[in-house]
Amino acid sequence: MKPIPKAVISRLPLYVRHLEDLAAEGVRTVSSGAIARSLGLTDAQVRRDLATFGTFGRPGIGYPVAELGDALRAILGLDRTWQVALVGYGNLGRALLAYGGFPRKAFRIVAVFDTDPAKIGRKAGDLVVEDGRSLAGRVRRLHVPMAILAVPAAAAQEAAWQLVRAGVRGILNFAPVRLEVPDPVVVDNIDFAVSLKQLSFHVRARGGEKMHGSEPRP
Amino acid sequence: MKPIPKAVISRLPLYVRHLEDLAAEGVRTVSSGAIARSLGLTDAQVRRDLATFGTFGRPGIGYPVAELGDALRAILGLDRTWQVALVGYGNLGRALLAYGGFPRKAFRIVAVFDTDPAKIGRKAGDLVVEDGRSLAGRVRRLHVPMAILAVPAAAAQEAAWQLVRAGVRGILNFAPVRLEVPDPVVVDNIDFAVSLKQLSFHVRARGGEKMHGSEPRP
Repeated sequence: MKPIPKAVISRLPLYVRHLEDLAAEGVRTVSSGAIARSLGLTDAQVRRDLATFGTFGRPGIGYPVAELGDALRAILGLDRTWQVALVGYGNLGRALLAYGGFPRKAFRIVAVFDTDPAKIGRKAGDLVVEDGRSLAGRVRRLHVPMAILAVPAAAAQEAAWQLVRAGVRGILNFAPVRLEVPDPVVVDNIDFAVSLKQLSFHVRARGGEKMHGSEPRP
Repeated sequence: MKPIPKAVISRLPLYVRHLEDLAAEGVRTVSSGAIARSLGLTDAQVRRDLATFGTFGRPGIGYPVAELGDALRAILGLDRTWQVALVGYGNLGRALLAYGGFPRKAFRIVAVFDTDPAKIGRKAGDLVVEDGRSLAGRVRRLHVPMAILAVPAAAAQEAAWQLVRAGVRGILNFAPVRLEVPDPVVVDNIDFAVSLKQLSFHVRARGGEKMHGSEPRP
């Protein structure tokens, strides 16, 4: 298979979620145009994206919802269960453990770590918060391939090194720092500030600033 | 100015942050190659991106760090303070209010709302949690142009309608639902599941699965 463009990969989860929604509604086939409208894309883009993965669509019939969903899930690695370690059990860690949006079958948080003595040993959902000092050993024994990093910025790089040494290959990083990791470890940064900045750009570009500035109107 | 491609906009905050880091280190000029290496981009891409906004680079000298940073901040709308309402004060809301990564000068959370009677009236940083039922009126009086939505999925759409009615033009949505909003309101979704799915794709693509699968090795 040819390398898949990054932009296409970034849209894949959206297709999967939409196809799952359609399947749940009992829809069996869907046109590229209908997918495009639902996801705010163009018809041509949807057809081009999906053609990257093989010939799914049938002229006049559309895409088979279940088959296409399964194929995209497999491409994303969602046909297996990924065990995930959660590092950091502050407010963000708690929110992530309780987050209703993770597909439970695909991702399972199997261990939670924190270095705060007041948290260690306490319940965290069905788990118990483990001592962050035992992070590397525990993650290695559990053979966890992915981790979510929800620690303060100052603690993130050290935690990342420990995860990498323990064999973790993918890190979802919420700390507002740029992590250094060796190949082939992948880091995906969720940076709330970047999102806010993009949003402020769009609000300004659409005239939102003039409509509703930060100074009270007379 | 021509419309700026979405991909360029998504990289703008990264440039700004990097330029701010450089300025803090006392760096006065920087080459496109050095920026590219720091951000994991190609030299050509950096030069193309920055050329979108005007002629900043000088051959043999590089980009003026402070001047370029100011220009990009202005383009992003970061040369003013955006007042932001935080809707939902659960674990995620708490984490966002305490988040160290927001540039304080550009974004200021000026009101926090929740519908839980146990939370209303309690302190939230320097603020006090306000009754979610007064959301629309308060946001309108405060003339807040942006909001962060950190409520459960089931409550998100109703909260979004109230925000829109109150004049909010940009919503950073953390609830795992697709919000319907009228033009010209902009929604930016932060979907943790999408990020995990992209990460699992990359881990699999780089052979991480074979190196460290979910089944314990013998």
